[in-house]
Amino acid sequence: MSIENLLARIQPLDQQAIAVAQARQAVLTKPAGSLGRLEELSIQVAGITGQPIPTMTHKVVTVMAGDHGVVAEGVSAYPSEVTPQMVHNFLNDGAAVNVLARQVGARVVIVDMGVAAQLPPHPRLIDKKVALGTHNIARGAAMSRSQALQAVLAGVAVVEAEIAQGLDVLATGEMGIGNTTPSAAIAVALTGEPPAVIVGRGTGVDDVGLQRKVTAVQQALAVNQPNPADGLDVLMKVGGYEIAGLVGAILAAAAHRRPIVLDGFIATAAAMIAVQLCPQACAYLIAGHCSQEQGHRLMLRWLGLKPLLDLGLRLGEGSGAVLAVSLVEAACRTLAEMATFADAGVSEKAG
Amino acid sequence: MSIENLLARIQPLDQQAIAVAQARQAVLTKPAGSLGRLEELSIQVAGITGQPIPTMTHKVVTVMAGDHGVVAEGVSAYPSEVTPQMVHNFLNDGAAVNVLARQVGARVVIVDMGVAAQLPPHPRLIDKKVALGTHNIARGAAMSRSQALQAVLAGVAVVEAEIAQGLDVLATGEMGIGNTTPSAAIAVALTGEPPAVIVGRGTGVDDVGLQRKVTAVQQALAVNQPNPADGLDVLMKVGGYEIAGLVGAILAAAAHRRPIVLDGFIATAAAMIAVQLCPQACAYLIAGHCSQEQGHRLMLRWLGLKPLLDLGLRLGEGSGAVLAVSLVEAACRTLAEMATFADAGVSEKAG
Repeated sequence: MSIENLLARIQPLDQQAIAVAQARQAVLTKPAGSLGRLEELSIQVAGITGQPIPTMTHKVVTVMAGDHGVVAEGVSAYPSEVTPQMVHNFLNDGAAVNVLARQVGARVVIVDMGVAAQLPPHPRLIDKKVALGTHNIARGAAMSRSQALQAVLAGVAVVEAEIAQGLDVLATGEMGIGNTTPSAAIAVALTGEPPAVIVGRGTGVDDVGLQRKVTAVQQALAVNQPNPADGLDVLMKVGGYEIAGLVGAILAAAAHRRPIVLDGFIATAAAMIAVQLCPQACAYLIAGHCSQEQGHRLMLRWLGLKPLLDLGLRLGEGSGAVLAVSLVEAACRTLAEMATFADAGVSEKAG
Repeated sequence: MSIENLLARIQPLDQQAIAVAQARQAVLTKPAGSLGRLEELSIQVAGITGQPIPTMTHKVVTVMAGDHGVVAEGVSAYPSEVTPQMVHNFLNDGAAVNVLARQVGARVVIVDMGVAAQLPPHPRLIDKKVALGTHNIARGAAMSRSQALQAVLAGVAVVEAEIAQGLDVLATGEMGIGNTTPSAAIAVALTGEPPAVIVGRGTGVDDVGLQRKVTAVQQALAVNQPNPADGLDVLMKVGGYEIAGLVGAILAAAAHRRPIVLDGFIATAAAMIAVQLCPQACAYLIAGHCSQEQGHRLMLRWLGLKPLLDLGLRLGEGSGAVLAVSLVEAACRTLAEMATFADAGVSEKAG
């Protein structure tokens, strides 16, 4: 499928399903509105899926991995070797996202989008490698336009294959040493905010490292001049392969009317590209949490999204998204499984 | 057991378990601190339980029900008949707390502490009824001191029986038409804040109803003159039977070194009484969420607790606490199940 065809398939939410879900929320055995954001979520998911009483049987988190040439600028507290090491950890179910996914019953799908090492084949590893990491964005474009397109379409293919196996909600995860730097560059390009308010400490750089990150983002913008009206241009110039994969994953999920639960800083940068390409995709997004990474709140505001959780997380991998999936499930289950006033013989509100 | 014996059994957190849990958090495959409040929670639960790697196998939510004479002042949008109707709904697994508990695998324990109706016997209903509802606190004391003690000790007995069956975490739930009014009165008595900043709309009273609630709380304080240095005095004069049951449940869980996840406004009022009786109990508390009910934030601040969730909930029943239990479980599972850097062959942070 071409990207144009995919974008054209993303439709507005189903207003009829929304109306039916709203009407049902009003007759469940609770004061109207008393489940707060769970009620709003259930209604949004009804609109997304077109099912007035949506179910959350198949939960999937895609963990897309890639490396970043910009690590040469000293922007990360960890070396690039950690990316393949963590992919190995995901494959062995040892990382935070594996533990959290096990708890909520989500499938973890691990994708090599552009790790800077040849990874040994593994039955659970999906090989979509476009290149051995990006070029250094502080010195030139991260990738070519055709590589960006290839990576986006690979993300589409990953999600479409998962949908074929059953996917009721998609959580977006990633791994890539250095990837808060391209994510910040994307956010700066699209919001127009100064790098210093967007760039944060990532996995924990010190003050000197933070200054190097700000400088790297400034250079990336100056050298590449990404066009904020062209999401693919921003992506190819200052993005990354795992970010591109997530753009495709988000667009595919939206095209197939599946809710997308965003993780933190990197996943939100991918969502900004997706929404730049197709503003209608925004209605399919659920902000799983607000990261501790500086700038994430501004990015969520640009998208018009209010995060579900605010737990000071700054890990990535999809960890916050998977935690939030259990809230989305709670929203759908209360809508589906609670008794109505009539069923339960409970008196409704006086007056 | 006398209440004095119970209070004497509540000990400080286990510093050795805390130290071991902290040390383990530092070697799990993630940047130190990147799981934010989940890390803090796991360490708190280690200190509470005395287990360096605590497990959350048995999750319990106690839903304590009682009625309130103050409903005669027009403080609720629903009639008292709804309390027994909702107890029936809990017994039939139709309420929000049932649905959410099913999702997180928690046992729902339903207790009649003082419903103003004779409830038919039911195998799942624990009968601890002290009286057919409280007296109207706007006109006099809610109950006698011996009734308050009886209700607290009934709450203790309920939790001790559940501990005998297995209880790794307690979520506090309640049901009682009108019970935001005594809860607000407790909060006003203990914080000294004016009623107008504590009293909220409960299940959804209009402006006139809200003014009646403020007046009822003012009258309750003026008529009863509860002594803020004596938690039992506050409880008997302006409390309720389900609130007293929760006080006992909280104290028992703390005495037995179990973490307690508070629900919203009413459960937090009960926690304030428990902490007034035994300040050491506070370390055992986890604020599940911040209710939309005005005043809840001030009550949490008085307790020194920061809520985990902020989803605009205002239902009670334990619904927010049960949602938060899944975060407590996530905290314990990541501590227990994640690979260490050494296990996974992942490089640690440079420098």
